[in-house]
Amino acid sequence: MRIERLAVVGVGLIGGSFAAALRRAGIVDHVVGIGRGRGNLDDALRLGIVDEITNEPTSGVRDADFVLLAMPVGQMGAVMEAIGPVLAPHASVTDAGSTKRDVVTGAYLHLRSALDRFVPAHPIAGSEKTGAAAASATLFVDRKVILTPLPENSAHAIACVRDAWLACGARVTQMNADEHDRTLGAVSHLPHLLAFALVDLIAGRPDAERLFGLAAGGFRDFTRIASSSPEMWRDICLANRDALRGVLVDYRQRLDEVGRMLENADAAALEQLLTRARDARDAWLRGSGNGSNPGHR
Amino acid sequence: MRIERLAVVGVGLIGGSFAAALRRAGIVDHVVGIGRGRGNLDDALRLGIVDEITNEPTSGVRDADFVLLAMPVGQMGAVMEAIGPVLAPHASVTDAGSTKRDVVTGAYLHLRSALDRFVPAHPIAGSEKTGAAAASATLFVDRKVILTPLPENSAHAIACVRDAWLACGARVTQMNADEHDRTLGAVSHLPHLLAFALVDLIAGRPDAERLFGLAAGGFRDFTRIASSSPEMWRDICLANRDALRGVLVDYRQRLDEVGRMLENADAAALEQLLTRARDARDAWLRGSGNGSNPGHR
Repeated sequence: MRIERLAVVGVGLIGGSFAAALRRAGIVDHVVGIGRGRGNLDDALRLGIVDEITNEPTSGVRDADFVLLAMPVGQMGAVMEAIGPVLAPHASVTDAGSTKRDVVTGAYLHLRSALDRFVPAHPIAGSEKTGAAAASATLFVDRKVILTPLPENSAHAIACVRDAWLACGARVTQMNADEHDRTLGAVSHLPHLLAFALVDLIAGRPDAERLFGLAAGGFRDFTRIASSSPEMWRDICLANRDALRGVLVDYRQRLDEVGRMLENADAAALEQLLTRARDARDAWLRGSGNGSNPGHR
Repeated sequence: MRIERLAVVGVGLIGGSFAAALRRAGIVDHVVGIGRGRGNLDDALRLGIVDEITNEPTSGVRDADFVLLAMPVGQMGAVMEAIGPVLAPHASVTDAGSTKRDVVTGAYLHLRSALDRFVPAHPIAGSEKTGAAAASATLFVDRKVILTPLPENSAHAIACVRDAWLACGARVTQMNADEHDRTLGAVSHLPHLLAFALVDLIAGRPDAERLFGLAAGGFRDFTRIASSSPEMWRDICLANRDALRGVLVDYRQRLDEVGRMLENADAAALEQLLTRARDARDAWLRGSGNGSNPGHR
């Protein structure tokens, strides 16, 4: 594939890495960076990630044959509304949001004129670092990218979006938005909430200082994701609150069972649970290559 | 201090590292390794961690002036009962169990003749690796060791045990066994249970394969402790089940609150919780040095 003019709305870690990866793959001629923060856009320009910068989505995406929406999800509706009328008929559009049902809903509300061309995507990659300065042409190598195409999508647009993510080195899979949100709710959003909740519980105790004083490596790894951006995770949790509430209910039931095992000192049941979990995790590590170099989140 | 004859019951990662550290500090003359597994004892002998090996606690600790109990906690009572009558009057004894109320109870039941000399301890250090072959003379450097002395302890025994752990490079603190178990219940045992429970929940789903297929780095770190030994954690959870049940109730209440925030789409409350947690964790990382090189568990 060949992209003559790539427009990236939101040149942060994800948007900047996408541009850098496609440039590295040698398939993009010109990159327009669109954003709100001048300092970050200047970084992107100085680092050679983009060739041109603007604060205006409307003018920025005009004449682009490929558009990535990678700004914070809170801006999704407004940006979709602004760019819908000016998107080129041959443009392909994708996004990088962590939740997909809300993005799909936003597209039906605000991007009706381009539903054939907007192919929602979620690259499962990231880092604690943010901004264009943290961008890397290899961020998506061997990472999974999930496409959740709309029935209205043209085969051409799906192929273009798939090829672009493949060109970034990603492994592209496909499912519907519901499946995506339920799955990520269980393996990503729930653990984030659980980690945040544990730290908050401990921090709120009168003896918090002593508790933190004896926390060690297990606690540190368990809670690493509680150092993530509160704003971003507030938005993800709310965007996916239906699926998240469902799996949270299941998890609380499981904790009730564990509570009963403790109450009854049921060593056999407890050992069975711990063994099942240990074995399942070890099998996952062996199978996924996640022991060595997984994407964050 | 000077130890003429050190007896280590259970020459695994912890016991072996204790012997290696004291030898490295140059304060021990002769080390007796006591254990059940011949292969592991042979390793310890071959690696120079111990000078002499035996399967018999009774003969092993005789004439020792310092004894460390570092076998699995399930053997604690039997070993205490065996060694109580033969411990030298001038010997100091400590242990390395992850829970302390059960060890203290065991001492009152089975070690009545040596309550002046047995100073319970918990070194907050470890690794996924096990056995004498994994032992390291630097395992305890800058790690916390918590002493939970008994009212019956002589000042001499407390000083000897403290000095030995200090000689290993550890930072020694002191609290009562109740405080210890409540604290570790919150910052170590609960996160272990939560991680095991999440993996088990996911593994038990009909769509487990897809769920694991999209689990990434956040899930991997959150669940690292779920690859720990099921037998060991079964024993820890049961030994500390009173404190653990208490903090589990608190945690489930916190999850109920989070559930209500999601139900009400209460963005402000959710962001407050996430921000409090993020700030508390970051402050802990800065204050503790746990960002770089913490002990495991």
